[in-house]
Amino acid sequence: MANKADKVKARLPRGLVDRHAADIRATDKMLAAIREVYERYGFDPVETPMLEYTDALGKFLPDQDRPNEGVFSLQDDDEQWMSLRYDLTAPLARHVAENFNEIQLPYRTYRAGYVFRNEKPGPGRFRQFMQFDADTVGAPSVAADAEMCMMMADVMEALGIARGDYIVRVNNRKVLDGVMEAIGVTDEGQKLAILRAIDKLDKFGVEGVKLLLGEGRKDESGDFTKGAGLNDNQIDRVLKLVAPVVGTRLELQYFMSGAVHGSDIGLEGVGELDQIGELIEAAKYSDRIRIDPSVVRGLEYYTGPVFEVELTAEIPNEKGEIVRFGSVGGGGRYDGLVSRFRGQPVPATGFSIGVSRLMTALKNLGKLGEGDVLAPVLVTVMDGDMEAMGKYQDFTQKLRAAGIRAEMYQGNWKKFGNQLKYADRRGAPLAIIQGGDERANGEVQIKDLIEGKRLSGEIESNEEWRASRPAQVTVKEEDLAAKVREMLDQQAQDRAGGA
Amino acid sequence: MANKADKVKARLPRGLVDRHAADIRATDKMLAAIREVYERYGFDPVETPMLEYTDALGKFLPDQDRPNEGVFSLQDDDEQWMSLRYDLTAPLARHVAENFNEIQLPYRTYRAGYVFRNEKPGPGRFRQFMQFDADTVGAPSVAADAEMCMMMADVMEALGIARGDYIVRVNNRKVLDGVMEAIGVTDEGQKLAILRAIDKLDKFGVEGVKLLLGEGRKDESGDFTKGAGLNDNQIDRVLKLVAPVVGTRLELQYFMSGAVHGSDIGLEGVGELDQIGELIEAAKYSDRIRIDPSVVRGLEYYTGPVFEVELTAEIPNEKGEIVRFGSVGGGGRYDGLVSRFRGQPVPATGFSIGVSRLMTALKNLGKLGEGDVLAPVLVTVMDGDMEAMGKYQDFTQKLRAAGIRAEMYQGNWKKFGNQLKYADRRGAPLAIIQGGDERANGEVQIKDLIEGKRLSGEIESNEEWRASRPAQVTVKEEDLAAKVREMLDQQAQDRAGGA
Repeated sequence: MANKADKVKARLPRGLVDRHAADIRATDKMLAAIREVYERYGFDPVETPMLEYTDALGKFLPDQDRPNEGVFSLQDDDEQWMSLRYDLTAPLARHVAENFNEIQLPYRTYRAGYVFRNEKPGPGRFRQFMQFDADTVGAPSVAADAEMCMMMADVMEALGIARGDYIVRVNNRKVLDGVMEAIGVTDEGQKLAILRAIDKLDKFGVEGVKLLLGEGRKDESGDFTKGAGLNDNQIDRVLKLVAPVVGTRLELQYFMSGAVHGSDIGLEGVGELDQIGELIEAAKYSDRIRIDPSVVRGLEYYTGPVFEVELTAEIPNEKGEIVRFGSVGGGGRYDGLVSRFRGQPVPATGFSIGVSRLMTALKNLGKLGEGDVLAPVLVTVMDGDMEAMGKYQDFTQKLRAAGIRAEMYQGNWKKFGNQLKYADRRGAPLAIIQGGDERANGEVQIKDLIEGKRLSGEIESNEEWRASRPAQVTVKEEDLAAKVREMLDQQAQDRAGGA
Repeated sequence: MANKADKVKARLPRGLVDRHAADIRATDKMLAAIREVYERYGFDPVETPMLEYTDALGKFLPDQDRPNEGVFSLQDDDEQWMSLRYDLTAPLARHVAENFNEIQLPYRTYRAGYVFRNEKPGPGRFRQFMQFDADTVGAPSVAADAEMCMMMADVMEALGIARGDYIVRVNNRKVLDGVMEAIGVTDEGQKLAILRAIDKLDKFGVEGVKLLLGEGRKDESGDFTKGAGLNDNQIDRVLKLVAPVVGTRLELQYFMSGAVHGSDIGLEGVGELDQIGELIEAAKYSDRIRIDPSVVRGLEYYTGPVFEVELTAEIPNEKGEIVRFGSVGGGGRYDGLVSRFRGQPVPATGFSIGVSRLMTALKNLGKLGEGDVLAPVLVTVMDGDMEAMGKYQDFTQKLRAAGIRAEMYQGNWKKFGNQLKYADRRGAPLAIIQGGDERANGEVQIKDLIEGKRLSGEIESNEEWRASRPAQVTVKEEDLAAKVREMLDQQAQDRAGGA
């Protein structure tokens, strides 16, 4: 044992968390529901490891002074830099490029896994979190993008989110590029400022975006955000694109075409969006998927359609406040990511569900089934001699062999109160008890802990019922498993009946 | 797109692998079977992140020259060293110590996850692999160790490994320490050499171990391994312990007691092993679990009982050679691991299943159910206009809505041969085809690809059967999903009938 002075402090690094049973079980259930949709769409699982060469991730090679800018990086013994993956898309691109000759295109795969961000952690922002992605590589047509949008919608409904409580919004990076070309913006910094302004439409409304596109905007606290510096004509053109008041697909197409007028790339984008709209109508998904030219997805590698799924239901947070939850997943077309390795174009599209974030949303929506795993039956220990211990062990194994979740008390058995306290903390449904007298008679007691708790609450009011089902019964050893099964079934019926 | 000169090389770091569909599905099935056993024993899931502070893992702090000795380490922005976990036990100890006041002991938990070793990779040795652990913290009695052994046995059988094809072997670190104390060995280097020699009993037999305990052993190639340098009396005493010819539990106890005679710690270990033996007999597991004083587990943190599960079935490897597969999991008591943080004793015991290793064994044993996921039905693309594409998309969604795994061809549709080649590579059971004529009639063709392949083999020999079930049918659009379901069911019947 360590001396006090030698003791190591037990602490997790910042931004990392341990996950507990309810969280893990709920996540597993979510992952299974998402997986079922991906499989139904014909996707197969493929996984890559946590570590990749840093250059393969498309990150700049870290220098010695700042080895971990955004990603966690370390040097292998052969001096090559490796990083923990920061998403699941870049490793997939590496995987496809590395195995290009063996892979049959189109290559339709999915994967769930942890990704890592070396960033300042904050509330709800972790440095390790889970994503669940699906991608189609080798699919040049926007039919593949349309399918991604439909799959995102089906995932939401598989998770119990009602139609109308979510929306999949689709845009095209070419349309955004097109309007910037059309208004003569070429400076990359100015382009970025424009995209950032558009991204604030939900938050600040048309008037706010107008300010951000122009000189800048002062918020309530007086802080000033510098704008993109567009003139009034340019601003009008951008707003015509991202904030049109339109109804039908054709009207929208008309407005978008007007906004990007003069830009070939922009018109191409408008055409692609219209095709996606037509496919979505044909498959009758128009009530779930909406073309929305204001969608800006952050990642720089998107080259065509981009999409995101947003929860629109009013979701109370932990404090009971209604919050706009926002995006829980998204993606787009990234035709350039595999060609980084190949030197030839490889079209690809995909999306990512933020599992940890979506789980928070489902929890707040009350859609998370947590409590469906029953705590184990506790076989208590009354005597510590080997004969008695052997008996307890045998009871426990017999219950397990009958498919009943059970455990023998493994702490210091001498304080029986501790055993009952443990059973209570665990939520054990039944306790099995055998003292010396019962052992001599080949008998064993079964204590109904749920019923016992209930009785202590209404011990007077329900005398008759109590007589018909006592909280404690004595049975022959050989009848133990059958009686325990019967009592657990009775408890399950009570729960189902709301008792 | 990158210029040829700028291209990044797509390659995985050494010792890491991508995982494919069959492997992932088989692993998921294995994990589910193991999880079911752990849950039945009353264990709950708890997970820790991939990264821990290096000192919390019990590793020496890396210096700048050798930052990655055995583990992958990196420095956080606040200069603290973090490492990727190398097992799941050290992080659990940190988790328990950090949350000690909230945790109800005994704390029975399980976790599956990747661990990382910064070692030279080799055949079957990877730098990232999966373990699936169960641990009980706060259980002082050997009853908890006995339970671990029984649980390992139940896991093997849940995975389809027959009784007799595996054995759980149990020893006690105190017995090994005891015999060394009894023969007067105090030097740590010599102790290690003795343990290494004992560990070779399976490989070299009693005579080989005798040489390794003494002066040393020369192998067939002439290579000499220096021995532990014990004298003949010392060697006899050790061999009496680790290679006794005994039958009953009482005989074994007699031999072990003799070997450790004079060492209190040794006698304590013998007593503990005997208690485990008694509990195992009481629970009727003696045919699966054996006390074996020659078991040496590598990790230095074990303080009492140690156990491992070994496959004894004759397992052919990839080349068809019969190999002794050896250990696929193990563990033991580690009473000191939590107290490193706490400065007070916290008893704990647990074991780890080597998932990746066990999967190789199951694959070689033919126990791995891989092929039970059906490839998707392929909706082919005959025309690229939006009306036709909309139809194909709609068919695909209708099949999916009926719970049928389906996908629309997403590659370049103009070469129809590519579509059929794709369907063949994917193993698609059916292809859906609609050209202009069928579209005009509101009809669609369903091609039975399995049957088609079969027919091309026996086209003459089975004319009559062929007539009763053509490889291609035409149905009304509205009957598509029902007919596809019918044909898939028919194929499933054929498979079940061995047709």
